[in-house]
This record gives sequence, C-alpha cells and structure tokens, in this order.
Amino acid sequence: MDEAPCRARLSAARVGHLATVRPDGRPHVVACCFAVQGDRLWTAVDAKPKTTTRLQRLDNVRAHPWASLLADHYEEDWDELWWVRADGPAAVLVEGAEHEAALAALVAKYPQYAAAPPGGPVIRVVVQRWLGWSAR
Amino acid sequence: MDEAPCRARLSAARVGHLATVRPDGRPHVVACCFAVQGDRLWTAVDAKPKTTTRLQRLDNVRAHPWASLLADHYEEDWDELWWVRADGPAAVLVEGAEHEAALAALVAKYPQYAAAPPGGPVIRVVVQRWLGWSAR
Repeated sequence: MDEAPCRARLSAARVGHLATVRPDGRPHVVACCFAVQGDRLWTAVDAKPKTTTRLQRLDNVRAHPWASLLADHYEEDWDELWWVRADGPAAVLVEGAEHEAALAALVAKYPQYAAAPPGGPVIRVVVQRWLGWSAR
Repeated sequence: MDEAPCRARLSAARVGHLATVRPDGRPHVVACCFAVQGDRLWTAVDAKPKTTTRLQRLDNVRAHPWASLLADHYEEDWDELWWVRADGPAAVLVEGAEHEAALAALVAKYPQYAAAPPGGPVIRVVVQRWLGWSAR
C-alpha cells in the first residue's frame, strides 16, 4: 500500500495498537486512541486513575524512544483484511505548545474526550515509515 | 480482571496484536490469528507468499525470545472497552509434535484456514502473565 492510503487509513482509525519496548528489553503493546497530523501522531494518558499499566508505556518510551502504531481491520471474510502501521522515534511530552496541540487534536477526533479531556502526558511519534497491506 | 476471564476472552478473540522486539531493539507489532491451549498460544505464518513483513516477526523472536499478545474490543461507547494481554517467552517452531498441534488448533479455530492451511513456522508463546481490563 502506498504512503497516502496508509496515512488516510491510519488517521481515520479509531483505535491503534502501540508497541514499545520495556526498559528491560521486552515488548509491550496497548490499545489506544490517537490522532495524526502530518508526520506526527499523538496518544495521551487519559484522565482516569492511572494504573501501573497506563504508566508503563511512558517508562518504555523514556527508556527506548521508538514506537510502532498499528491499526487494522478484521472480519471473517479474509478478503477484507487490512492493516497500516507507522513507526518512528517517540517522546513523552508533558507541557508546551505541542502538548496542547496534541490534546486538542485528540479531543477533536474523539467526542468522548469532551466529558473528561486528557490532560496528562502525551506520547509523540514522528513517523519515519508508513507501511500497509490490504488483502484486496 | 482475573486470570480466568482473561484466558476466556483471549481464547475467543478472533484477532490479536503481537508485539515483539526487532534484532536492533526497536518494537514491532502485527495483527495475527492465534490459538490458545492452556498456557500456550500459537500463531502461524500463513501459506500466502511471505513478505519481508511476515518474516520480520520470526527474526524478532529468534533474536529476542519474548512476545506480548493483545486482544481488545473497541466501540464508540467507551463503557464497552476491554482488553486482555498475554506475555511470555516465545520461540519459533518449524516442525515436530507441537508444531502439528498448533496448526491443528489454528485450523480448528479458523474455518478460513481450511482453504489454505498454514504450514510454515509457528510462533509459540508460553504465557507467564495474563492481564486484562474492562471499563465496566
């Protein structure tokens, strides 16, 4: 799949799967909401009480500043399968203009955030590689 | 979420998200079919022409023998969100009794495989930790 449809599908996807590497070198993966703008994508730690699991991804990115975000479509007709993935260096943003822009982009994409806007740290990925595949 | 419901939800899930670590230490994530039996889970490289992407996960497991598999449910009503995850040491099986059992379990779970049964390498994860969360 070319880069343009990868970007389009990833931008529109409602849930992503964010893979990072734990400080000890083992893999970690979470489902998350995210927003894409140009070559940047952002995902936030939401306003709910933070569990160990929610903070793990931040520790991971601080220790190993790279992330891979996958969005995919599954249905029982395997001719309809597709996935898109974005990879790049990642960082934790806790304040500043980009942190604000990221939160605004997330609220704009997800009306659900209106009730409890995310306010915590944001993971920012600068996408270096867009990759995708479709069964069709 | 306790271990029993984690196992039940993961076993029933139709698609998983498998995170591994590339030889160079960066994270990798793919969507995959998988089957669970006891504390083992298996996913196969299918019979379609193998792309670089499909083989990447095998290189990863050989270099860093640990994997994390996530299954999750997304819908716009965030009260319905849930996820389950299984983590453990991973290995690539290319033949033998467990390889055969894994392929049989995959074919039994996915009728789609009947048309083109998987026959290539299998990634086997011995689950050491079951983890899950539900919004309810």
